[in-house]
Amino acid sequence: MNYPIIVDVTLREGIADPEGATIERALPALGFNGISHVRAGKSFRMNIDAEDESSALAIAAALAQRLLSNPVIENATARSAAKG
Amino acid sequence: MNYPIIVDVTLREGIADPEGATIERALPALGFNGISHVRAGKSFRMNIDAEDESSALAIAAALAQRLLSNPVIENATARSAAKG
Repeated sequence: MNYPIIVDVTLREGIADPEGATIERALPALGFNGISHVRAGKSFRMNIDAEDESSALAIAAALAQRLLSNPVIENATARSAAKG
Repeated sequence: MNYPIIVDVTLREGIADPEGATIERALPALGFNGISHVRAGKSFRMNIDAEDESSALAIAAALAQRLLSNPVIENATARSAAKG
């Protein structure tokens, strides 16, 4: 079976996020107030052939750790795209 | 109230995704087989002050359209981070 999986890669707490900080600083001038703690991240959507969904998630988690993220500064989590 | 919101920005169907294609091409050599349709995207997490969650999502959707995405080539969707 083929499972749609999303890997979310986010910066760890405490790691500086210049992109998020820049967006946050620009917001008031653009008419958006009351928005804080903007953090930028990446996401990767893919289809994985596996016996069941938990195997697909395990493959995605391994992939996320080895390839898609830098574990020193980033957290990676895999989730099913089918659940929305 | 303060609501944690995530904005997901993904490339529209049919738009070339060199980053996703490069990852997909590298996978077999790294021992990952059966993975297809890799698409790279971005995500932005933020806290929004609003009267209720649907107002917070509306603010995030406006922000996503105006600032965080290029609507010509990207789709942006806002969701609550509290629901996971």
